[in-house]
Amino acid sequence: MVLLHQRDLRLGGKFVGLKRKRKDLAMIVSDTPCTIAAAFTTNKVKAAPVLWNQDIYENHSTIRGLVVNSGNANSCTGQKGVEDNEKMAQTMANLIGVKKEEILVASTGVIGVEMPINQIVKGMGELFPEMNNNILSGVNAAEAIMTTDTMIKTISVKIEIGGKEVHIGGMAKGSGMIHPNMATMLSFITTDVDIDSGLFRDSLKEITEDTYNMISVDGDTSTNDMVIAMANEMAGNPKITEKNKDYQIFYEAFLYVNRHLAQSIVKDGEGASKFIEVTVNGAKTKEDGKLIVKSILTSNLVKTAMFGEDANWGRVICAAGYSGADFNPDKTTLYFKSNDERILLTDKGLPVDFDEEKALHILQNNEIQIILELNDGEYSATGWGCDLSYEYVKINGEYRS
Amino acid sequence: MVLLHQRDLRLGGKFVGLKRKRKDLAMIVSDTPCTIAAAFTTNKVKAAPVLWNQDIYENHSTIRGLVVNSGNANSCTGQKGVEDNEKMAQTMANLIGVKKEEILVASTGVIGVEMPINQIVKGMGELFPEMNNNILSGVNAAEAIMTTDTMIKTISVKIEIGGKEVHIGGMAKGSGMIHPNMATMLSFITTDVDIDSGLFRDSLKEITEDTYNMISVDGDTSTNDMVIAMANEMAGNPKITEKNKDYQIFYEAFLYVNRHLAQSIVKDGEGASKFIEVTVNGAKTKEDGKLIVKSILTSNLVKTAMFGEDANWGRVICAAGYSGADFNPDKTTLYFKSNDERILLTDKGLPVDFDEEKALHILQNNEIQIILELNDGEYSATGWGCDLSYEYVKINGEYRS
Repeated sequence: MVLLHQRDLRLGGKFVGLKRKRKDLAMIVSDTPCTIAAAFTTNKVKAAPVLWNQDIYENHSTIRGLVVNSGNANSCTGQKGVEDNEKMAQTMANLIGVKKEEILVASTGVIGVEMPINQIVKGMGELFPEMNNNILSGVNAAEAIMTTDTMIKTISVKIEIGGKEVHIGGMAKGSGMIHPNMATMLSFITTDVDIDSGLFRDSLKEITEDTYNMISVDGDTSTNDMVIAMANEMAGNPKITEKNKDYQIFYEAFLYVNRHLAQSIVKDGEGASKFIEVTVNGAKTKEDGKLIVKSILTSNLVKTAMFGEDANWGRVICAAGYSGADFNPDKTTLYFKSNDERILLTDKGLPVDFDEEKALHILQNNEIQIILELNDGEYSATGWGCDLSYEYVKINGEYRS
Repeated sequence: MVLLHQRDLRLGGKFVGLKRKRKDLAMIVSDTPCTIAAAFTTNKVKAAPVLWNQDIYENHSTIRGLVVNSGNANSCTGQKGVEDNEKMAQTMANLIGVKKEEILVASTGVIGVEMPINQIVKGMGELFPEMNNNILSGVNAAEAIMTTDTMIKTISVKIEIGGKEVHIGGMAKGSGMIHPNMATMLSFITTDVDIDSGLFRDSLKEITEDTYNMISVDGDTSTNDMVIAMANEMAGNPKITEKNKDYQIFYEAFLYVNRHLAQSIVKDGEGASKFIEVTVNGAKTKEDGKLIVKSILTSNLVKTAMFGEDANWGRVICAAGYSGADFNPDKTTLYFKSNDERILLTDKGLPVDFDEEKALHILQNNEIQIILELNDGEYSATGWGCDLSYEYVKINGEYRS
């Protein structure tokens, strides 16, 4: 769980009345200042907490706490939303005894509905004394940030740097609207590593490109998404100030945590029955590879074919074709894979006479890999998505009402 | 119908054995040379007939005939596909007594399966003597280009230019994979107007941007799409050689025909239960307006909300936000409309307290308009799409098998 063995960090989650009965308020507090790294939605319409956090991220160096509510996104709520958001920050600041600019805020849920701010403020006061650094508190927090998620998404890893134990933990929420460029997802990572602020920010930026921005559930990008990582430097490792071996150890673990959270989000995608991994090898540039991966992952025709367990490779090639990437269709080789079983579908641009029964056997699994070899360069890209099911239509045709 | 009253044009459609029993071969023949205007798929993977036609379009000025088969797309079929395509052109050229470079070819259907070329060649010989310029021949041709379409899509208009009757007729097929940039759709327009070749091409290019490229069923762009317009100059009107009043009369009618066909394609989108028109007004540039229209039309969350008859305006605003267009969210005003009933959902960026019952009443209609006022400039854009239903998932989960 998020906090396991991380010193000076506490968290908690509680039901305070925004949702019908499930937990809807989470808080994380650090007793020592935390360096932060973050990524925010690229949507032109940004919710109040996103604007608040962006300002702090650009103008302040450390924070002490984070408050998150689910059930209401505080988006499209105008000036009142801005004031409500500030009240949340101020309330937490008062509880800890710091300035409101040391508090980050996140909200997720319905758009365009005024926040029940009095309930939230009251709830924050009730939750604060219950916060702890045990597993239960972590689970409560992870539950409280969920919306249509069907399970909590958490991870915790331990590494050694300079003879010291360093911890990284994280929790996330996802489900609907998950797409490259920070779709409706929240991801919060805590670590006790001691690292230079610039390096910490660089590492998360790079990792976000290869993890959160390479997943897609339905192609929509929300107004509230963010990834926030906080490091309180309590591990006592020799401070990482350059891209040396210590940095590599940290980076690998940090990547692992974020990739795990990103994949968990896709696996719990609304109505998803299959987890799809798309890998493109041999691209002319990394960007070409990514364009093709994303185009395949977001194609409704590919997604419904996966749902229907239909080895319709033509739709995959077609999606690659309209991705905008530069490649030579006459060189492409395509495989579907699951577990240790792999099937060749096209070879150098031409379909092969494949065993339909074997293809069906592969596609009947819950986790499927689509591998496209472009044979056109040295770059690779991988991304993750899911199928498009009846359940997706059902959930999203009925969500608000 | 396509040919009604157009002199020197004949067409026909027939079952020749590519599909199980429905008609699968169509031909159009002009006894006099036709000026052509065309638009082709932007997909990197192009089917053999697309490559053939593009070459003719760039290097030859007139054609005499068009042959179209459904049931097989002749895409991802390599060198054999190229040869089969040429055989179709050569066969038709022999039947008419012209060069193969005077024949255009179109194919639609399954990708990556070798063409049953002998059946097609034999069928062409049988269809040729049956071709005619009566309504029944036109209906037969329109039927023969269908794949998962549930109805034929045709239109015919008559205008007067310089005291002469000028005719424009068209037929199209669509259904799956319909998206801006020439998705899986075929559209063939015939006219007897006498017009300068450059002007004819310019007009279709402009019209394609505002019609076929502004529709979306599922966002996928196919390997085979094309719009082909042929003008055989038999109306006897004073030749249109500049953008004068005669040109305007022709342009309006030509636009009407193409918009009608584009809209028919969306209305018959796979599994579509509602026809959605999205209009953006007050954009800074035409391009910004189009980006927003397309983003709203292709959002699975908007599409499922429409299917669920849920006035979830937040998803519309959100889709506008991630479109990449430049606008000020605080100035946007959003309406849903159907027939003469209109409801205001957000006013200058803020949600209004609307009558849910009235909203439901509007959304229960089969044709819905989404109107977004950006109040940020002088440009407008309109596009057409459909909802995302259980039926879409069903059709596309089972198509190939």
